[in-house]
Formats: sequence, structure tokens, C-alpha cells
Amino acid sequence: MEKNRLEAFSDGVLAIIITIMVLEMKVPHGADIAALKPVLPVFLSYALSFVYVGIYWNNHHHLIKAVRKVNGAMMWANLHLLFWLSLFPFVTGWAGENQFTTAPTALYGAVLLLAAIAYKILQSIIIAAEGCDSKIAVAIGRDSKGWVSPALYAAAIALAFFLPWLSGCIYVFVALLWLIPDRRIERIVDESQ
Amino acid sequence: MEKNRLEAFSDGVLAIIITIMVLEMKVPHGADIAALKPVLPVFLSYALSFVYVGIYWNNHHHLIKAVRKVNGAMMWANLHLLFWLSLFPFVTGWAGENQFTTAPTALYGAVLLLAAIAYKILQSIIIAAEGCDSKIAVAIGRDSKGWVSPALYAAAIALAFFLPWLSGCIYVFVALLWLIPDRRIERIVDESQ
Amino acid sequence: MEKNRLEAFSDGVLAIIITIMVLEMKVPHGADIAALKPVLPVFLSYALSFVYVGIYWNNHHHLIKAVRKVNGAMMWANLHLLFWLSLFPFVTGWAGENQFTTAPTALYGAVLLLAAIAYKILQSIIIAAEGCDSKIAVAIGRDSKGWVSPALYAAAIALAFFLPWLSGCIYVFVALLWLIPDRRIERIVDESQ
Amino acid sequence: MEKNRLEAFSDGVLAIIITIMVLEMKVPHGADIAALKPVLPVFLSYALSFVYVGIYWNNHHHLIKAVRKVNGAMMWANLHLLFWLSLFPFVTGWAGENQFTTAPTALYGAVLLLAAIAYKILQSIIIAAEGCDSKIAVAIGRDSKGWVSPALYAAAIALAFFLPWLSGCIYVFVALLWLIPDRRIERIVDESQ
Repeated sequence: MEKNRLEAFSDGVLAIIITIMVLEMKVPHGADIAALKPVLPVFLSYALSFVYVGIYWNNHHHLIKAVRKVNGAMMWANLHLLFWLSLFPFVTGWAGENQFTTAPTALYGAVLLLAAIAYKILQSIIIAAEGCDSKIAVAIGRDSKGWVSPALYAAAIALAFFLPWLSGCIYVFVALLWLIPDRRIERIVDESQ
Repeated sequence: MEKNRLEAFSDGVLAIIITIMVLEMKVPHGADIAALKPVLPVFLSYALSFVYVGIYWNNHHHLIKAVRKVNGAMMWANLHLLFWLSLFPFVTGWAGENQFTTAPTALYGAVLLLAAIAYKILQSIIIAAEGCDSKIAVAIGRDSKGWVSPALYAAAIALAFFLPWLSGCIYVFVALLWLIPDRRIERIVDESQ
Repeated sequence: MEKNRLEAFSDGVLAIIITIMVLEMKVPHGADIAALKPVLPVFLSYALSFVYVGIYWNNHHHLIKAVRKVNGAMMWANLHLLFWLSLFPFVTGWAGENQFTTAPTALYGAVLLLAAIAYKILQSIIIAAEGCDSKIAVAIGRDSKGWVSPALYAAAIALAFFLPWLSGCIYVFVALLWLIPDRRIERIVDESQ
Repeated sequence: MEKNRLEAFSDGVLAIIITIMVLEMKVPHGADIAALKPVLPVFLSYALSFVYVGIYWNNHHHLIKAVRKVNGAMMWANLHLLFWLSLFPFVTGWAGENQFTTAPTALYGAVLLLAAIAYKILQSIIIAAEGCDSKIAVAIGRDSKGWVSPALYAAAIALAFFLPWLSGCIYVFVALLWLIPDRRIERIVDESQ
């Protein structure tokens, strides 16, 4: 039951984050197609962030499914993750409005990096609680994607000071990498059922 | 359990979309009835979009009810549908503020069309997973409404460049068409219980 | 199960309405107590609307609890109710910013009246489905509060053109009338358990 | 079942409060790091309020878990608590934008104080309903933290007129005090299972 409420609260926060991001796309005053031009980069950054929140929801779903008993550390690690994800609307709006120039691109990457670290902390706390030979620990395994993405975010932040458009490409690339859902967990959980 | 969380997340996103749309109706500064005049078209487009989101929620509800096991493809097809629906507040605000002139009317239709296509994709993935002789496949049948509405949206988009008010009428007409809930599924599901 | 999703969706919409209303209280630019002065009437109208949404949530909760099987008519009657409730943030902001002068006060009453009518329609559809001798029909009985409040709202709308402050008092009075939860239903449902 | 809906509604409202607070961090127009400078104090007040809402969610979760039967008084005491919590986005924005000067700092403390009192009322109503020797009554015990924090908030409000930065420190200190979850209840509930 405790777990249900953790899931319900996280679903609520993620649903709101994914939806209020669209409020950063301000309705233009003009009535012709040209009026949409400044909205386009915000739309693209919105679409990218939408995919990222979708990925987090998807993986969060699989991760929490593996939890048998929620403890206080998990609750706070989960809130910590939600905190960084809640900054997505802000960085999405800033990056979109400034067409992924240096500072907004670096900040976008920083929030992605901090959210990735928060996810890793939550994952570690859950594995620690469930045991090293639990289904979830085996399923995650070496977690190569979980290590590669923070490294790529860090690289993209540094790169933003020289070639911000390349940083943007890295963010899109990492999103595509994760779009393949976390089948590792899914597979092992399914097998054991 | 997986299915519950998919429903809860979709319900959350749809509930937020339907509610934050009202924020596009900006509170007027004046205190007399005349101050409401510019708000009226936004109110009408809000009411139309409210009905559309209500229709999607209703049909989504019946569709997901027929799913026995959620897979990764369904999750992403569902997020894809929510993405287009999440653009409703933006296009509703733009169409309302510009009183359904050409560009906003065409964009409104484009988002309706893309949402309809996304719904069809989700429906196909669910039917593919459940089997061609499953209750849901039989219930949907030839899906005439599901084919007629995208065709009407496409026609309305083209028409928006000549007679945008007629496009608006088409959007209202399709909404009325769907207000009759998807009794096909409801009936067959009920019969088999 | 159907019923759960109707409740979840309604809870979501009501939770969002009650929360985004606070966004109509714009953060003032000044840093002294005097800067709060224009916010005060918005705060008071926010508090009143918060109580109204709380009342609707409370009564809605008892009403839906009595439903055994959700049908299409109930779903749409429920969405119809949520539509009028979703206009609360708009009328609350307008009435608050203009300190309950004539037009905003009348509109506030009109939305209260339309929501009350929508609630009555939902209630009638549920009673019709459950039968005249069902627990819910007996519990509601003559429904004097359900008839008195729309009459008072209508009177307050008319009065707004002469003594808008008295209309405001009527809205506060009706809220107090309903703050006493719908014990009729609660009592009878409890007895029969 | 009643309890589930109370939890679902409260989770919804808390999830929305915690998420819309981020909308007070307005996206800056400039594209360089310097443009973030005025956003920084709003970010810090956002982080503090995020922790407070997280604490309330956490403790609320443990408190409601101990309830066996929800009554009308609990529902209204719960809505009363949500009312004061719903003012967090407003006071967070005002305190952040004015860098915790006198008036915003005092108001921030006032809302914290009123929310703390509302929580105490809810707690008392639940203990009264469950009985003085119930698990929850024993778990809460003398409730030293529940008495110390309102006293500290009151002190901080008075102090805001002389040393507002010290009031800010007190708010941070009380948050840290509560970050340690309410293990009293957790422990006793766990033991008895």
C-alpha cells in the first residue's frame, strides 16, 4: 500500500511536469503562420523534454515495480529525483526561447545530469534494500546505459561552450538510446513470474 | 498492476490538459460585461477542446479496459497520443484569440489529425497484441468513425485556407459524431461479462 | 473498476482546479506589506472558491460512492459538471481583481448556478439508474438544499446589478450551508453497511 | 475505500503544489549565465518549499495510514491543511523575488505556521477518532517536534522585522529537523504488523 502511494504521487508529479512544460510555448499574438516561427524552437525543446520525461516515467515504473517494501530513504531519493525533473519546464523554456545557445544548453545538460545522478542514487538505494542477488540487481547488471548517459551529459555541458548545437545532438542521441525501454528488467521480471 | 499505472498516468495527463486549457482564458482587466467580449471566442474554443479531451478520455478508457497485458510498444504509443493531446491548450488558445482565422484553424485541425492518427496507432498495437479475434478487435470492427474523422480533419485543414468558419463547423460536427460514446466496445464487452 | 477511473479522473480535475486557482493571485512586485493590498480581495475570493470546490469534492465523493455501475450518461454528466467547475479559476480571478463589482459578481453566480444545475443532472441520472427506492434516492430525499442553493444563486445574480456586496454575502451563506457535509447520504449508507 | 480517495485527492493536490511552484521561476529573456542571477533566489526559495511540501507529503502519508475510518471532520481538517499548503507557490514566489526581505519573510513564516497548526488540528481529530491508546496516539506521543516548529515559525516571523536573514535560517533549520522522517509512527506501526 505504501508503494501504491509513492507510485501515485510520482505519477502525479511526472504527469504535471510533462503537461505544464507546454505552458512555456506562449500563444503568439499574430494570426499568420509566420507568428509560429519563434515558437518552433520551443516546440522542439518541448518535444525532446517530453521524450525524456516519458523515458523517466517508463524506467521509474519498472524500477518501483521491483520494490517490495518502501522505506524512508527511498521516499527521499524519489523526491530528490522529482526535484530535478521538476526543473525541466524551466530549462526547456530557456533553451527553447534561446535556440540552444551556450548557457541554456549547458544548463539543460546540467539538469539532465543531476536527474540522471538522482535516478542512480534511487536505484542504488533500492538495490541495497532488495539485496545484491535480487531480481532487480541482476536485471540492472552492469548498467552500461546508466553510466554512459551521465558521461555524455557531462561531455555535452563542456561542449556547449564551443559547439552548442553538437550538445543538442548529444541530448537527442541519449534520448534515442533510452527510447529502447529497459528490457533488461522487464525480461527478468517476466521470466520469474 | 502495470495497466493501472498506465491508466493513472494517462488520467493524470488528461485531467491536467483539460484543466490548464482554462488558463488560456486570461482574466480581463475591465470590470464590465464588455470586457468579456474578447474572452468569448477563447471560451468557445475552450468548450470545443474540453469536449474533444472528454471524448478521448472516454474512448481511451474503453480501449485500455480491453487490454490484458501492457507492453513497451503500448506505453510509447500511449505517450505519443498524450503528446499531441498536450498541444490542445496551445492550439485552443491560438484559435480562440484569433477567432478561428486561417492559420490557427488549420493548426487546430492538424493537431486533431495527429492525435487521431496517434489514437489509431495505439488501437492497432493493442489489437495486434490481443489478436484479431479478440473482443476488442471484434468490437472495433471496421471502425468507420475512426477513418471518417481523420479524413474530415484533413478536409477542414485544406478548407481553412478558403472558408475557415466552415472548418470550425467541421470540428464541431466531428465532436458531435463522437459524443455518442464508443458503444461498439461497451456493448460487446458487456455482453461477454 | 470503471467507477475507480471515473473517481480518479474527477479527483484529478478537482485537485488541479483547486490548486491552479492560486495562480490567479499574482505575486506582487513590491516587497512591503502594502504591496499585498490589491492581492487581498483575490485571496478572499480564492478562499471562497476553495471552500466551494471542497464542498463539491466532498458531495461528489458521497454521490459516486452510491453508484454501482457507471454508464455513458453518467460519464458525460460528470464531465459536464467538471466543465463548469473548471471555470472557477477564471471567475474567481475576475471577481477578486475587481472586488466583487456588478459584472464579475453576476458571472461568479452564473457559474455557481450552472455547476449546481450540472450536479443536479448528474444526481438525477444516478438516481434514475439506481432506482427510486435505492439507498441514494432515499438518502437524497426531497433534496431541499439542492433546490434552495440554485434559487439563492439566481437571486444573487439579479441582486448583483443593485447591491453586489449582498450577492457576495449570499455566496458565502450558501457555502456555509453546504459546509455541513451531506450527512443524509452518509448516515443511510452507514446504516445499511 | 473512502480513505483511498482522501489519499488520492491529497496526493493530487500536493503533487500539483510541488510542481506549479516551479512556474514562479520565470524563464529569463537573456541567454547568458548572468540572466540567471535574478532567478537564483527564487530557485533557493523553491528548493526550500519543495523540501517542506515533501515533508508534509511524507508525514501526511504516515498519519493517514493510521486512520481506520475517515469521517467528515477529517475531510475538512485535511482540506484546511491543503488550503494553507496551496499558498506555498505564492509566498515562495514573493519571498524568492524579494530575496527574503522583511514582509515576504514574515508572510512565508505565517503560511508555514498556519499549515503547521492545520496539521496539528488534523492530527488531533484523527487521534480523537482512533482513541488515546491507539497506535497513532502512542506513536505521536508528546509530539515535541510538532510543538517546537510552530514556536520557531512564530519566533521567525517576529525576527523578520529585525533580521530577516536569520528568519530564513530558522526556516531551513526546521526543514532539516523534519527531514528525519516521522520514525516514531513508522516504527510502532511496523512493530505491530
